[in-house]
Amino acid sequence: MAKQLKTAISPTREEDYPEWYQQVVKAADLAETSPVRGCMVIKPWGYAIWENIQGDLDRRFKETGHKNAYFPLFIPMSFLQKEADHVEGFAKECAVVTHSRLEADEDGKLQPAGPLEEPLIVRPTSETIIGELFSKWVQSYRDLPLLINQWANVVRWEMRTRLFLRTAEFLWQEGHTVHASSEEAMAETRQMLDVYADFAENFMAMPVLTGEKTEAERFPGADATFAIEAMMQDRKALQAGTSHFLGQNFAKSSNIKYLSAKGNEEFAWTTSWGVSTRLVGGLIMTHSDDDGLVLPPRIAPSHVVIIPVTPKEETRPQVIDYCLELKQQLQDQNYMDGRVRVEYDDRDIRGGEKAWGWIKKGIPLRVEVGPRDMEAGTVFVGRRDRGPKEKESMPVEQFVSGIASLLDEMQAGLLAKAKAFQKEHTREITTEADFVEFFTPKNVDAPEIHGGFASMGFCCDSELEDKIAKEYKVTVRCIPNATADEVVPCVFTGQPGKRVIFAKSY
Amino acid sequence: MAKQLKTAISPTREEDYPEWYQQVVKAADLAETSPVRGCMVIKPWGYAIWENIQGDLDRRFKETGHKNAYFPLFIPMSFLQKEADHVEGFAKECAVVTHSRLEADEDGKLQPAGPLEEPLIVRPTSETIIGELFSKWVQSYRDLPLLINQWANVVRWEMRTRLFLRTAEFLWQEGHTVHASSEEAMAETRQMLDVYADFAENFMAMPVLTGEKTEAERFPGADATFAIEAMMQDRKALQAGTSHFLGQNFAKSSNIKYLSAKGNEEFAWTTSWGVSTRLVGGLIMTHSDDDGLVLPPRIAPSHVVIIPVTPKEETRPQVIDYCLELKQQLQDQNYMDGRVRVEYDDRDIRGGEKAWGWIKKGIPLRVEVGPRDMEAGTVFVGRRDRGPKEKESMPVEQFVSGIASLLDEMQAGLLAKAKAFQKEHTREITTEADFVEFFTPKNVDAPEIHGGFASMGFCCDSELEDKIAKEYKVTVRCIPNATADEVVPCVFTGQPGKRVIFAKSY
Repeated sequence: MAKQLKTAISPTREEDYPEWYQQVVKAADLAETSPVRGCMVIKPWGYAIWENIQGDLDRRFKETGHKNAYFPLFIPMSFLQKEADHVEGFAKECAVVTHSRLEADEDGKLQPAGPLEEPLIVRPTSETIIGELFSKWVQSYRDLPLLINQWANVVRWEMRTRLFLRTAEFLWQEGHTVHASSEEAMAETRQMLDVYADFAENFMAMPVLTGEKTEAERFPGADATFAIEAMMQDRKALQAGTSHFLGQNFAKSSNIKYLSAKGNEEFAWTTSWGVSTRLVGGLIMTHSDDDGLVLPPRIAPSHVVIIPVTPKEETRPQVIDYCLELKQQLQDQNYMDGRVRVEYDDRDIRGGEKAWGWIKKGIPLRVEVGPRDMEAGTVFVGRRDRGPKEKESMPVEQFVSGIASLLDEMQAGLLAKAKAFQKEHTREITTEADFVEFFTPKNVDAPEIHGGFASMGFCCDSELEDKIAKEYKVTVRCIPNATADEVVPCVFTGQPGKRVIFAKSY
Repeated sequence: MAKQLKTAISPTREEDYPEWYQQVVKAADLAETSPVRGCMVIKPWGYAIWENIQGDLDRRFKETGHKNAYFPLFIPMSFLQKEADHVEGFAKECAVVTHSRLEADEDGKLQPAGPLEEPLIVRPTSETIIGELFSKWVQSYRDLPLLINQWANVVRWEMRTRLFLRTAEFLWQEGHTVHASSEEAMAETRQMLDVYADFAENFMAMPVLTGEKTEAERFPGADATFAIEAMMQDRKALQAGTSHFLGQNFAKSSNIKYLSAKGNEEFAWTTSWGVSTRLVGGLIMTHSDDDGLVLPPRIAPSHVVIIPVTPKEETRPQVIDYCLELKQQLQDQNYMDGRVRVEYDDRDIRGGEKAWGWIKKGIPLRVEVGPRDMEAGTVFVGRRDRGPKEKESMPVEQFVSGIASLLDEMQAGLLAKAKAFQKEHTREITTEADFVEFFTPKNVDAPEIHGGFASMGFCCDSELEDKIAKEYKVTVRCIPNATADEVVPCVFTGQPGKRVIFAKSY
């Protein structure tokens, strides 16, 4: 770098938050746009984060009795029409397959050929196709509950896309379950919401609110939608996962019936729930700083990078041996259910560039080892949760034996910091004037930065909600579970209302 | 079951092999057809097998330096055209996306709307889209080798489909690598073929031949294609994985260039390699018998099922406690890199039906525990690799402490059996008359069953190969690596030829 910038990422969060986000993604080499409109390419470092998310969630799903399966990518157009609200919600943006081959025309140019009898939709979500299959799988109360999850790609033809946050194709998991009673289906809906919340907090160090959505934000076809909502550093809310109580709507449209223990034929009750690669976007915006990505250790593809510093050719072999032995020692340390994950970076590039590369990638710990460290039996350690210059020398044995607890400390620290941020920017709002003031940016140079989460009474009238959304670009993110029973006067109408969180959102 | 059949699967392999296969898949509840033409639904027991395949292969890929990434589902039509042979190979059967939404017409019927400027193909394989991205990722020799793998779904609009063996949509992995030299790319191609072969033999207990394909069976756009070929129980060959040396063909069509250490701009050399859910079909047809699926322990979703036998209500609670304790003891036993995986089946159905259900699912071990076993401190063990009636009583401690070595013994036994079968049905062929005789079914009632693998000299003339394929429905499966240097007279022309394996194939 010809000129040393003040921060590794430019612009900073304060200067231009949306652009800062793009630059963090780029600098960490997480993902990039592709030649296919709206579809992203997830690069190895970004995909490794997704693999860790998958691994931990998958374990949680299996521990709660769910099994994985795989259903078709395509949905016949007629299936989508079975549920009226559902088709309304998804028909506007979906990839439609109409032909089954390509044929060269007279000029040798390829053209779609072999028209299909019925067009197929690339799944935007799988309730309708899975419902069709479940109607065969479920016959008796003995087949219930049916607890299935699918890891898959889905496509929604979004017009304005942003890496991880909103893309035409994304990766996700979708749980689909069938139950014999409303109570059991509701218990499942809430259980999976809690699984998501616990995962977000304890694996991603991303604190979330859990709560129900108002009618306006409900999943098309659901009786009730619950969500986890996280606060990003621009104080906007990110909906990071949803869990839907579908009532008997899809059971009726897909004809999922079971013979009860008493011998009656009954419609079943279903749920669905999902999280996606959007979580990676939430991760980035929760922790990263103006030097790039910051990764909580549990989700980090690697925990520590060892960088050999070899200024002199004659001590080079010894330093390398020392580093490789350190690598082995670190890899032998237990961390969570596995081992400490170690990178060894001996690329032939300048030391500063190398260290900054790892800072921008968010690796929790950087260890530099030169001839003098080797002689003294020490290592030079940089923590990603501290400033890039704050490096500390420590005895190698101390570093090795303490690395698991150091990683735990960093994980806890990032969660505490994010919790404090969320708390700091959540305010009790009691008047409309305060509401307006809260959501008005204070600084013309940082138009993104506003108040945050407004905790307040709201009558939940859909028309009023729509009016507020249009006027202030602020919506009800959820009716938090923790305070769901409170009766609070509506800030706008004075009528008895529920306690809700209003916020700007992604 | 009103009438006790001689075997659990009907028809048997001898009676009707293709139908036997379908019935094994159904009885084990592995997969089923879907309402979408040619697309299968992979059910939990089948998907768990695929997850185990993924887990073991993924570890092998990472150990050989590859990283996972994810690329778009869609490929612009123009990309497919960049490589002439490639478009020829895939244009005939591909799902074409032409519209981006659905709109109700005057009658309220949905119709495709929002036509795309350029149609998109649902990826049948990703060389062209990944090549486009690699051309940006690769700039200098320092970026090489680039070793990437993707786990994904792909679509090929096959006309005749069969669960796992040939479906319109299937799951697979595709490795894509870029190298600075032809030698290095060829070494990678061969290395991944060896990874597949070792995986097939040691994880799936499915012995394979490794070898090169003749020109007729080469991947569209490849300079050389290598494959692993396994013998099924109807003595047909199943191509179970391929590894392609792509030369500079895709580097040239996608413009993947690098600056060499000497400062010259050079085209790179690429490879690609893949295995798919077809492996599950190979697994089924290698080991299963007329009682259903047989699973080698390493790939089995569960290793052992515990079935409580509770004829009397008064001893029921004790038997259940005893079984649950046994479950815990078994789960604490190490097996391979993990633990013994245990099912506990207390469903309220008849004992015979329950045991047969697990036999048909191929679980390696069944343990029945009744009041008398409990009192005697014994268990009643059935092995899937022995007859369904051959059950053995043994002290519970002996069973628990010996289970890992028992599973190892079963794994080795299945591999040895499959190897012996392959050897038995591989014959050295030296005359055309022997060739014809070898591939002629001997039994009119079992038209599928013929000789097997013919090991013989062949001049590798493409026209002749085509003629043989048409006349006898027999093709060259591979030029085995083990005997690639042999010069053998061609059975048909007498000219110097290579040693090849001719076989009927899936």
